[in-house]
Amino acid sequence: MRAVDIIEKKKHGEHLSREEIDFMVQGYTRDEIPDYQMSAFLMTIYFNGMGKDEIAHLTESFVNSGEQVDLSPIEGIKVDKHSTGGVGDKISLIVIPLVASAGVPVAKMSGRGLGHTGGTIDKLESIEGFRIELSSKEFIDNVNRHKMAIVGQTANLTPADKKIYALRDVTSTIDSIPLIASSIMSKKIASGADAIVLDVKVGSGAFMKTIKEAEKLAETMVGIGKSLNRDTVAVITNMDQPLGNQVGNSNEVKEAIKVLSGHGAEDETTIALTIASHMCVLGGAFGDFDSAYSKLQETIKSGKAIKKLKELISIQGGNPEVVENTDLLPGARNSIDIKSEKDGFVYQIDAESVGISAMLLGAGRRTKEDKIDYGAGITLRKKIGDTVKKGEVLYTLMTNLDDYQDAVERMKEAYVISNEKPETKPYIYNIIK
Amino acid sequence: MRAVDIIEKKKHGEHLSREEIDFMVQGYTRDEIPDYQMSAFLMTIYFNGMGKDEIAHLTESFVNSGEQVDLSPIEGIKVDKHSTGGVGDKISLIVIPLVASAGVPVAKMSGRGLGHTGGTIDKLESIEGFRIELSSKEFIDNVNRHKMAIVGQTANLTPADKKIYALRDVTSTIDSIPLIASSIMSKKIASGADAIVLDVKVGSGAFMKTIKEAEKLAETMVGIGKSLNRDTVAVITNMDQPLGNQVGNSNEVKEAIKVLSGHGAEDETTIALTIASHMCVLGGAFGDFDSAYSKLQETIKSGKAIKKLKELISIQGGNPEVVENTDLLPGARNSIDIKSEKDGFVYQIDAESVGISAMLLGAGRRTKEDKIDYGAGITLRKKIGDTVKKGEVLYTLMTNLDDYQDAVERMKEAYVISNEKPETKPYIYNIIK
Repeated sequence: MRAVDIIEKKKHGEHLSREEIDFMVQGYTRDEIPDYQMSAFLMTIYFNGMGKDEIAHLTESFVNSGEQVDLSPIEGIKVDKHSTGGVGDKISLIVIPLVASAGVPVAKMSGRGLGHTGGTIDKLESIEGFRIELSSKEFIDNVNRHKMAIVGQTANLTPADKKIYALRDVTSTIDSIPLIASSIMSKKIASGADAIVLDVKVGSGAFMKTIKEAEKLAETMVGIGKSLNRDTVAVITNMDQPLGNQVGNSNEVKEAIKVLSGHGAEDETTIALTIASHMCVLGGAFGDFDSAYSKLQETIKSGKAIKKLKELISIQGGNPEVVENTDLLPGARNSIDIKSEKDGFVYQIDAESVGISAMLLGAGRRTKEDKIDYGAGITLRKKIGDTVKKGEVLYTLMTNLDDYQDAVERMKEAYVISNEKPETKPYIYNIIK
Repeated sequence: MRAVDIIEKKKHGEHLSREEIDFMVQGYTRDEIPDYQMSAFLMTIYFNGMGKDEIAHLTESFVNSGEQVDLSPIEGIKVDKHSTGGVGDKISLIVIPLVASAGVPVAKMSGRGLGHTGGTIDKLESIEGFRIELSSKEFIDNVNRHKMAIVGQTANLTPADKKIYALRDVTSTIDSIPLIASSIMSKKIASGADAIVLDVKVGSGAFMKTIKEAEKLAETMVGIGKSLNRDTVAVITNMDQPLGNQVGNSNEVKEAIKVLSGHGAEDETTIALTIASHMCVLGGAFGDFDSAYSKLQETIKSGKAIKKLKELISIQGGNPEVVENTDLLPGARNSIDIKSEKDGFVYQIDAESVGISAMLLGAGRRTKEDKIDYGAGITLRKKIGDTVKKGEVLYTLMTNLDDYQDAVERMKEAYVISNEKPETKPYIYNIIK
């Protein structure tokens, strides 16, 4: 087999065999196939796509390129959850205790990564004492005993995907559905998931800008799940504006506490309950979605859900008092209220601009070396469709930096106030399974 | 400017500016843009093509990447000729003295390269004493005095194209018309040509397999010529079987002598006269193609053309007696006649297989280090459409190797004898200017 012949085949839109795909992926990971052949190959995939089988082979090849987490010592069906990424996305913080409270094991592994805010583990680390470094035994014991645990990803999972992703980034081959889908699914499978619920976000703050694209990505990932015997459900959710009202790290923990206490914003409460319900159904706790949804609503109402969050914080060494007293979470020295300059409706909030502002305030990482300011973030006082009067506060920026003018400018671009009332959009567009 | 953004633009089929194309080409030549970005870029060109302006900019950028030959000390319009490559293609050997005999200067620079047989300079070197290393002054003086000279290419012409070609070879991006066209035209322009006649070959022995593809390539090259002020004519010629009857180095010199003496095979005589006529018209020697053609026929008949070949051989140090006595050219120890196993018509001669056989016999180079055996080659005794009786010689293999079985096998695959008489195809399909 020669790489150039495989590139040629895909260039002509031919179907590649499992062996051919594996030859490219493993050869590249072992530095036997050079970057320039892989980048040409990735571009042929961008243009000619891949069939269902090819995408499944690619995913398996990514999984086989590195370590695979063995979750078999954990009793029950291990259901993982993944979000394609949005602004103010604290759904995992809500879903972990919610699903665990229904008896379904949640063995969450999470990376730090780069972004507008930190990842789920960064957000939890804003709680004093919270440890995300657990031994393998501790992790498994915790899940068996408490039905939940979260650790930072330490294993060398899917190194092929990691190496290919870095190449895609500099060769304009990020936006290829087969490549995005196999990248996401391979990481979940290598992490030991038996079943997967995907939150595929669509809108101004998401990678997928149209519902059609998001559906295509969702269908592709669900297809991979089917091919590789991992039951997969994709929930397509709106990311035209940030979720809820809080963006940041401790900010988002605060808001997760509100949702689990039954006082959360409607959008994220609905999405979190939907995702948790699908996870519970896949995990075998409930027979159907509707009964799962009402049981989980009950769990929130009864106080069981917020108790479960306290339990998670306790067992991982954090101070559980933050749940009752969120003032114990890190704050910021500067708090800047920005007021509306006119009357009208909030017509648009560009989610990506809000995310970038949060990063400029210190809430996220641009490079791996950046330190996160847990207390930095943005509180949205008005959301799309809200009426607003001149002089009313639209949002509050929180930061420990003294130079926050760029963030202010960026936020001003994000908000559009209009006389026209905007169309109401659903929180959830579609469920694909 | 960033390479990744330029890749992205071309990926989306957008038009690139002169500056963007130059940024990629010069950056790559200077090792500032890595192979993996260039290969991704080349693949976007494969898929999305390039507009007329973009192809002209690409060609210019190739030209500007290296040295450019200054032919201004040569009087008259310098017309160059290029063939896209075929088997038994000795047209240059015929055309140089033919055009020179009409008073049009032919300042030929030629590479050795790899192939079924050597290049034009290798073929001429099969003549004892022939020198292809001339000083710049000697080259120019010879052209001014004798209207012709041929040298091996020594200048560092179009290094960008050279580097990109090597990358295309291993990334399956050879077969892109904008890349092929700009590669060919940039070399001719950097060599100092004022006008260019292209022999675009099509058929089993050519890179272009269909007339449509060949026409597209021809139109693209003629378009580049127009954009860059070099009058260009493309002649689309048949390469379904080797040209004439001789394949090899001294073999092809022998056959060129026959054509220039008026006893050549009809196919190559017609093609050589057509190309030479277009060169003479572009060079201003004749007002129109038809009068050029009849004048050049006259030149052959009168003996002026063959005399001009003797002159070329003499001035470059070769033994001119080979023209009268071709036995002075290198021969081969082994001569193997292969006979037909049945009666019928020669239905097909796969030109590429003939070329590979010639190489296996020693006539060509597989790697730059290979030595050419000038006497090795193949004489075709029967060509497509000829009737053949069982036991008649189809072709003769000549070699100094003792192990020539692979070449024999390959030739057996090349010839198809059938009861059906094949369709007659023209030698020349089209002229594009």
